[in-house]
Amino acid sequence: MRALLCADSPHIIADYPDPVPPAGEALVRVRLAGICNTDLELVRGYMAFRGVLGHEFVGEVVSSPDPAWIGRRVVGDINAACYRCPTCQAGRHTHCPNRTTLGIAGRDGALADALLLPQANLHAVPDVISDEQAVFTEPLAAACEILEQVAIRPTDRVIILGDGKLGLLVAAVLRLTGADLTLVGRNRDKLAIAEGWRIPVRLANETLPDRQADVVVECTGSPAGFAQACKLLRPRGTLVLKSTYHGALSVDMSALVVDEITLVGSRCGPFAPALRLMVLGLLDPQPLITACYPLDEAAAAFARASTPGVLKVLVRP
Amino acid sequence: MRALLCADSPHIIADYPDPVPPAGEALVRVRLAGICNTDLELVRGYMAFRGVLGHEFVGEVVSSPDPAWIGRRVVGDINAACYRCPTCQAGRHTHCPNRTTLGIAGRDGALADALLLPQANLHAVPDVISDEQAVFTEPLAAACEILEQVAIRPTDRVIILGDGKLGLLVAAVLRLTGADLTLVGRNRDKLAIAEGWRIPVRLANETLPDRQADVVVECTGSPAGFAQACKLLRPRGTLVLKSTYHGALSVDMSALVVDEITLVGSRCGPFAPALRLMVLGLLDPQPLITACYPLDEAAAAFARASTPGVLKVLVRP
Repeated sequence: MRALLCADSPHIIADYPDPVPPAGEALVRVRLAGICNTDLELVRGYMAFRGVLGHEFVGEVVSSPDPAWIGRRVVGDINAACYRCPTCQAGRHTHCPNRTTLGIAGRDGALADALLLPQANLHAVPDVISDEQAVFTEPLAAACEILEQVAIRPTDRVIILGDGKLGLLVAAVLRLTGADLTLVGRNRDKLAIAEGWRIPVRLANETLPDRQADVVVECTGSPAGFAQACKLLRPRGTLVLKSTYHGALSVDMSALVVDEITLVGSRCGPFAPALRLMVLGLLDPQPLITACYPLDEAAAAFARASTPGVLKVLVRP
Repeated sequence: MRALLCADSPHIIADYPDPVPPAGEALVRVRLAGICNTDLELVRGYMAFRGVLGHEFVGEVVSSPDPAWIGRRVVGDINAACYRCPTCQAGRHTHCPNRTTLGIAGRDGALADALLLPQANLHAVPDVISDEQAVFTEPLAAACEILEQVAIRPTDRVIILGDGKLGLLVAAVLRLTGADLTLVGRNRDKLAIAEGWRIPVRLANETLPDRQADVVVECTGSPAGFAQACKLLRPRGTLVLKSTYHGALSVDMSALVVDEITLVGSRCGPFAPALRLMVLGLLDPQPLITACYPLDEAAAAFARASTPGVLKVLVRP
């Protein structure tokens, strides 16, 4: 099959071995896949991954341990856990120390003709959701994870820093809380998408009041974003970190202690509510799509995704 | 009156002006005061404070806007808030931006013959609590603050790093949760106090299992303690920071994001439950007392409190 391999400059291999499902796993033909910032970091050496890239997809089940799933349109949880260790038994399977992760660690990914995932990871996609929406389920689930971790109240003042793909999807989800939401970014075109959802936006160089926000969600992944988040947060406020950072950050922890700040790291989230929100018509991620490339041109798609100002680049096998 | 002034080398002034209570404030004769690590830091320049030191005390009301309080034995919340600003109105009066703090910021402290506090800050001390216990109410309240912020479950594995005064009081309070508690420290004599409370202890150079603790409470205030806390914590665990740090810490925030760690800064706490726990006989801080000096020898008491291996040094006017 065709597959985009993680390398210093990612490229399509035409004759990558066809995946053969082990016990408990389904073979999924990819209908549409998305490129994520994590993919760009993987190429730069993050996680030392060197298999097939891609973890955002919608596909169709070709074979499954449960024949009832064959032919179904699916999305899939990217973490394949062991379900036997204490971490899994405690219900934290996305943190299973024995896990593999689709297109990220120990498991080939979705930028290919087909992929493998445990049957238990798959979620059927309701007909009302298009492929172009379903392909956003994974990053939308990551946005939903914030609400799994933090109780955001309708009276809260919430600021999201970063108008990239993640910041926009976080805004789309947190908008549903009824909270007093502001998205801060640097790109007028990206902010315009949030404005289309009637979310108040501010340019990063505009002044926001210090120490007023109940919750700040940091989606820039930059030290400057982290510093600004600390400045905007009220005492006893909550700082949600959705982005990873290159290298160590220098942090004034004493200020966090004196102000009794809660800092919450947030990663992968639950697929079922992400799908529900789209079924209910409460959000539509499609305005984030910048371009769609055929799989044969996945290397070009990858280059495009690395370009400033670009949001979601899709790849169709 | 006599008062210990914050200076590079703190010293007793015999003729410090007698405090005159403004409207709403009580005049309290100090019966017993304690020296805290924060006092040692204030002398080194923390908060740029230069008034009378001391914020841990038990005293007797000499005058009060409410005559019913005169003669009562009291302890007192150290943060004097405005109760008018949005922060106070939201119930976060210990974070009031207009606050003064007893012996720490904008308000003379307890290492003196007498002090002033708003009447609303005072808590009557039940007769069953001795002065030597009551003087620990403030740091015990700070230990109780952890349970105001984090739900610790009886099945949790909890590790406290640091066998100083704060670490021991935190251990005394968290012991009441029934959680699987371990106190880690460097000083066998200090650890022996926790052992007297039947708390399992470990020396800091002993190996503890990585990524197993549900909650770690960092009471060392050292970068090494912070790093060890991160190492001991399981994915989705909670790291409580009870100590301030000198300067900025270098933190691998990406690891906190990937492991979805919650980090909680924790400072001053509620006095009423601290008093209740002592009334109920559920904890007794008196084993922490190393020495008690007369107020005239407060400078010597201060020097003693700065000596390694020493726990609580008290001063009696």
